[in-house]
Amino acid sequence: MIGHKSQSYSSTTKISTMSSPPIKFGILGCAEIARKVSRAISLSPNSTPHAVASRSHQKAAKFAADNAFPASAKVYASYEALLDDPEVDAVYVPLPTSLHIKWAVLAAQKKKHLLLEKPVALDAKEFDQIIAACESSGVQFMDGTMWMHHPRTAKMKEFLCDGSRFGDLRAVHCCFTFAAEKDFLENDIRVKPDLDALGALGDVGWYCTRSILWAADFELPKTALALRGTVKNSSGVILACSAFLQWEDGKTATFHCSFLANLTMDLTIVGTNGTLKFQDFVIPFEEHKASFSTAVKSGFTELVTGWDPKPSEHTVMTDLPQEVLMVKEFSRLVGGIKYDGAKPEKKWPTLSRKTQLVLDAVKASIDKGYETVEIIS
Amino acid sequence: MIGHKSQSYSSTTKISTMSSPPIKFGILGCAEIARKVSRAISLSPNSTPHAVASRSHQKAAKFAADNAFPASAKVYASYEALLDDPEVDAVYVPLPTSLHIKWAVLAAQKKKHLLLEKPVALDAKEFDQIIAACESSGVQFMDGTMWMHHPRTAKMKEFLCDGSRFGDLRAVHCCFTFAAEKDFLENDIRVKPDLDALGALGDVGWYCTRSILWAADFELPKTALALRGTVKNSSGVILACSAFLQWEDGKTATFHCSFLANLTMDLTIVGTNGTLKFQDFVIPFEEHKASFSTAVKSGFTELVTGWDPKPSEHTVMTDLPQEVLMVKEFSRLVGGIKYDGAKPEKKWPTLSRKTQLVLDAVKASIDKGYETVEIIS
Repeated sequence: MIGHKSQSYSSTTKISTMSSPPIKFGILGCAEIARKVSRAISLSPNSTPHAVASRSHQKAAKFAADNAFPASAKVYASYEALLDDPEVDAVYVPLPTSLHIKWAVLAAQKKKHLLLEKPVALDAKEFDQIIAACESSGVQFMDGTMWMHHPRTAKMKEFLCDGSRFGDLRAVHCCFTFAAEKDFLENDIRVKPDLDALGALGDVGWYCTRSILWAADFELPKTALALRGTVKNSSGVILACSAFLQWEDGKTATFHCSFLANLTMDLTIVGTNGTLKFQDFVIPFEEHKASFSTAVKSGFTELVTGWDPKPSEHTVMTDLPQEVLMVKEFSRLVGGIKYDGAKPEKKWPTLSRKTQLVLDAVKASIDKGYETVEIIS
Repeated sequence: MIGHKSQSYSSTTKISTMSSPPIKFGILGCAEIARKVSRAISLSPNSTPHAVASRSHQKAAKFAADNAFPASAKVYASYEALLDDPEVDAVYVPLPTSLHIKWAVLAAQKKKHLLLEKPVALDAKEFDQIIAACESSGVQFMDGTMWMHHPRTAKMKEFLCDGSRFGDLRAVHCCFTFAAEKDFLENDIRVKPDLDALGALGDVGWYCTRSILWAADFELPKTALALRGTVKNSSGVILACSAFLQWEDGKTATFHCSFLANLTMDLTIVGTNGTLKFQDFVIPFEEHKASFSTAVKSGFTELVTGWDPKPSEHTVMTDLPQEVLMVKEFSRLVGGIKYDGAKPEKKWPTLSRKTQLVLDAVKASIDKGYETVEIIS
């Protein structure tokens, strides 16, 4: 277990090795995930935790103390107060999804760069208001999909882009499930219709959708079809569902996401020449290294009694955990805007929007009784 | 590569260690797969290759010579002649699917026990005629799904049956694809409407369906839905398709089968407490050993920076290859009937029929424009 206090990373050389001062982060709310991201903000060489806000001052103060914020860090008893702090460069927003539209837009209006947890909004229409606010203020947007920043992800992308090894994408399957405890199923914000109305689809389904889009080089599918058997709680929030996506050129994908089955995190990507697989796509089994399997022009031995060639395993080491790399990249972009007159990188909101569009289509398909829904950008 | 002539197995002690004489096999046709099964008949301690038939005497003779048939083996220039050989106890039938109804029924009528390649028939109605002929003659039926007989399969079944480790099945995904060569796509019997009209669905899809049923303890799903994007050749034979299966209790499965993507053979089975995965379910990567991965009550480290516990790998060794174990079990059942007055084991035709019923439903769903089809036993 790698806990905050036993961290094996050092952030002491932060300022002396950077050309610009570190980006100062404010954190809106004390969600569980904020602990991990706070650690990442501390560990990233170009960022520092500057403030935390909660509706309870005591809770915010405890969060700052528990998460090794510097002594100079500010503690606010309201989100507005944090957003009014002129020293805050960027905010990390792990609030329930239904609150994103209000606080993300306000943060952008207050010229705070925005690192927003997923799902980014309740639907793409809401998200478009968030993007519009960011664009209008010239601030950087990025969502909290950490695995995108792991060096394994870049390494796997090389494989997928290699026509001779992978060829053309034909099929993807993604499964992300975990077995939520009774307390989660009763009380977690992710099962509350007024907080995270998209339930498992917005939570684990976000990762499935993002990973499938990533495999498809972010080409939007033409259609989405939710598959029957969606499980909802008594408030109508999705606890488990599956979907099928189809592209113009015939490639297809399926995914299954659920709060009701053992933790499983598989991604299998099949091309005409090769196959890519990994089983821990969102959270690697270990923090410092991550593996994946590739197969190229797989075949059988002469009497079909074995494989030749067999798939091969690859391991990618990382000095910094993926969430630190996320914060580092975000802070690099923010620093570029703040200190070097750069423009916000549009790639990140574009990827978020596409992910949200697919989620919306799956949700619409469920709501329409499992009709096929066209995905229109 | 383990070829026939470099085989590391010995069949010399066959007769002396068995209480009854070995079961004498006749082989109908010289299909590629018959080479592997002939080797298995030679290697199994309770069976022996006795005869081979082809419409060409020369082809049959060459097959017998190439596949180390004993000098006493018979070579027939017609299937009828082989079936009229009173010494033949059992036949292995690797003929194109459209010919199964004729030859499997005739074989059964001639009191030959029947080891029949998959798919067992063009549809369950045809298959019922084959079963009826077998029942009427009191002969054993088994299909050629080899992996069912690997000791890994039994080991994995123990895991799936363990409520505390696996719990209740919630979701299965299976993917079996291979990238067929140009010659296969033009000339193989599996792409010819008059020979193997079910194409990829009948070939690789058979294995997907069987594996999903196996995971579900052979409970038939309530419905099947083919997923859009079926690829057919110019004769209308399926080259790639996907399907979704749903059970009464809410568990679901998806599969993708194709002749048009790199060899991939994944099975992921997710329960409430555990997960089972393997990536070579039909043909293990190696002949003498096979692996699988299990995970039980998987979770994360404290800050969700890794897994605890992680999945674990298991390896199962086998003295005899899975197809030899299949022939051995089939021959054991045949020997029981022939020498000990036992009744045919009904389990095997029952499993075949269920597999065929699901294939039929997927095919019907495609033919009906991707409607959900009820599966009625």
